[in-house]
Amino acid sequence: MTYSAFHPTPRTLMGPGPSDVHPRILEALSRPTIGHLDPQFVTMMEEVKALLQYAFQTENALTLPVSAPGSAGMETCFANLVEPGDHVVVCRNGVFGGRMVENVERCGGIPILVDDPWGQAVDPDKLAATLSAHPEASIVAFVHAETSTGARSDAQALARIARAHDCLTIVDAVTSLGGSELRVDDWGIDAIYSGTQKCLSCVPGLSPVSFGERAVERIKQRKTKVQSWFLDLNLVMGYWGSGAKRAYHHTAPVNSLYALHEALLLLQEEGLETAWQRHTLNHQALQAGLAPMGIEFVVDADARLPQLNSVWIPEGIDDAAVRTQLLSEFNLEIGAGLGDFAGRVWRIGLMGYASQPKNVLACLSALQAVGLHADTSPVAAAQAVYASHR
Amino acid sequence: MTYSAFHPTPRTLMGPGPSDVHPRILEALSRPTIGHLDPQFVTMMEEVKALLQYAFQTENALTLPVSAPGSAGMETCFANLVEPGDHVVVCRNGVFGGRMVENVERCGGIPILVDDPWGQAVDPDKLAATLSAHPEASIVAFVHAETSTGARSDAQALARIARAHDCLTIVDAVTSLGGSELRVDDWGIDAIYSGTQKCLSCVPGLSPVSFGERAVERIKQRKTKVQSWFLDLNLVMGYWGSGAKRAYHHTAPVNSLYALHEALLLLQEEGLETAWQRHTLNHQALQAGLAPMGIEFVVDADARLPQLNSVWIPEGIDDAAVRTQLLSEFNLEIGAGLGDFAGRVWRIGLMGYASQPKNVLACLSALQAVGLHADTSPVAAAQAVYASHR
Repeated sequence: MTYSAFHPTPRTLMGPGPSDVHPRILEALSRPTIGHLDPQFVTMMEEVKALLQYAFQTENALTLPVSAPGSAGMETCFANLVEPGDHVVVCRNGVFGGRMVENVERCGGIPILVDDPWGQAVDPDKLAATLSAHPEASIVAFVHAETSTGARSDAQALARIARAHDCLTIVDAVTSLGGSELRVDDWGIDAIYSGTQKCLSCVPGLSPVSFGERAVERIKQRKTKVQSWFLDLNLVMGYWGSGAKRAYHHTAPVNSLYALHEALLLLQEEGLETAWQRHTLNHQALQAGLAPMGIEFVVDADARLPQLNSVWIPEGIDDAAVRTQLLSEFNLEIGAGLGDFAGRVWRIGLMGYASQPKNVLACLSALQAVGLHADTSPVAAAQAVYASHR
Repeated sequence: MTYSAFHPTPRTLMGPGPSDVHPRILEALSRPTIGHLDPQFVTMMEEVKALLQYAFQTENALTLPVSAPGSAGMETCFANLVEPGDHVVVCRNGVFGGRMVENVERCGGIPILVDDPWGQAVDPDKLAATLSAHPEASIVAFVHAETSTGARSDAQALARIARAHDCLTIVDAVTSLGGSELRVDDWGIDAIYSGTQKCLSCVPGLSPVSFGERAVERIKQRKTKVQSWFLDLNLVMGYWGSGAKRAYHHTAPVNSLYALHEALLLLQEEGLETAWQRHTLNHQALQAGLAPMGIEFVVDADARLPQLNSVWIPEGIDDAAVRTQLLSEFNLEIGAGLGDFAGRVWRIGLMGYASQPKNVLACLSALQAVGLHADTSPVAAAQAVYASHR
């Protein structure tokens, strides 16, 4: 069989990620590959670390991109911090909390669950009660922005409670980094991981992580080796450490790191708080435009993620048919529901470069075009939101 | 601190990898990102699998690129095939055999070593004797092309011996895939991993792997869960399986997969055997040109890898100074020695797109320019090899 070159149809990516990649980032991606130990590359690695510190709002020295997607970033946190027999509280209110439980178990840890319904934030009181009942717990893990439901949990409050019970925190910020307020140092988060393909507008494949001193200390005090050689931070640190001591570990994904560097430059140019505000504004406009179509949000207003809008599919609407038509006629991708939400929920992403008025209006118009009825103009409602912010 | 865009100086990459990336691959890399569940992307994934089957010369259904670098491909093999208490024979004749031992241990396996000196091929007789002495062994792991030394082992012979002792094989083909003869099915290899950044001329960051039926059966018969969630083939298979049943596992590195698709198209266009011959010819020309400079090979002629030329640094030559000068004046990267070979050996890569006469001549000329004395013309010697093949 002979195949030919693959030329994807350009899409507008308004699902749960990957999100639209900024043209500057695609251009950076295709710059000439150089060696992963080239002095120029090493200098760039240092800049990536510093720019990630800014994005995470941290001074943690151990801040770097893992050379694999977000789920490997999750595993980096658990594999390094959890030893067999450790008791780990996992707050579970969606798919990714469930994946954390899997990670704890595969590291030989003992999970203690704090369950909340899908679409709701993690309940801080439940966490506090669970920690009081389980003094043997030494780690608390939770998802800041649940990509499967669109719910934002109060990371600051949860981290404070964990610390009051002398627990380290592992935080999933895959969908929040760059899109929602996140302050690793101010909030006292010990270990955090994210992805590049959401609010950083970068290509998928890397997972920025950051570890504070307490987490590093715990890793150094391990009695057993980290079960993953590839993700063992004792080795990764040698590679991403300061210039002179750099030791070969694996071959870095050179071009993907060019892309991340450019993505982080874009974030620095815009300013982190401005980016958070932009995500909020476009979310408000989308929300205003969905209302005349009778489309309601899954998550209560105070816990809604601006970058991931989970909405109930109206009665009588064929989920798959609508998404297929949006993709084939308008080259517009929105996300399906996962797990319990399959067939019942759409996830409309407004992440990173995709979070812009043009996309909000295009999405509203396309939804109307594929058959969603509106009593008044969705586009006008969205425009009114933008007008009021001018 | 404010940073600016990173524009790497274009280099010629003649180290141990990454190798020069073909311009068509860099272009493919920057095509528009689409969703990882987009029907167009799913079709492309199927093509990547089929093209990888061609590259590996296998009909194994479980043939796919792991979404992380080669060392994660190695870990995929060990984490899925080794359970606690398993006895695994590891043939060690360089850095990567040593890394295999690390992997066995971290999976709870018990390594049994077959050691050969750095720079030599694995001795098949030693392997046979070890297997006879250790009937408890159920897996044999070895490196086909040792990137740290430039030695090629006889994968066909080693796999035959392993099978005669009812052992599965795990083979490192990071540096051999696309550059040296490799026939997974004919040679009876059960599990194999490679990298994209060597003889495929692609960007670093992915690890093609292939598993035969006996390996898949062993994974299905496991008594314990695979310790890595990210690398668990039971889950990865659900994602890379045939179209209809595709289940979300992680977000694929979309653009890197465009690049791999293009790289595999290039290989198909050239033809696998033609690519192997090209690597051999350019190696012979380099070898002929190095001789007048008195530069000798580390590896005996019958085990020399054409794509990775390990040579002794001549007496009185300053390793680091030469490599620095080659890089700064000629934008030419050659590789340093690793481990025991640090400071004593250069590794001159002629991999994939970098394996072309232009580079051979440029390297020889540059070595002369930075002070390596030659009795007769290195370039003329190399040209004579090319002339004799026209």
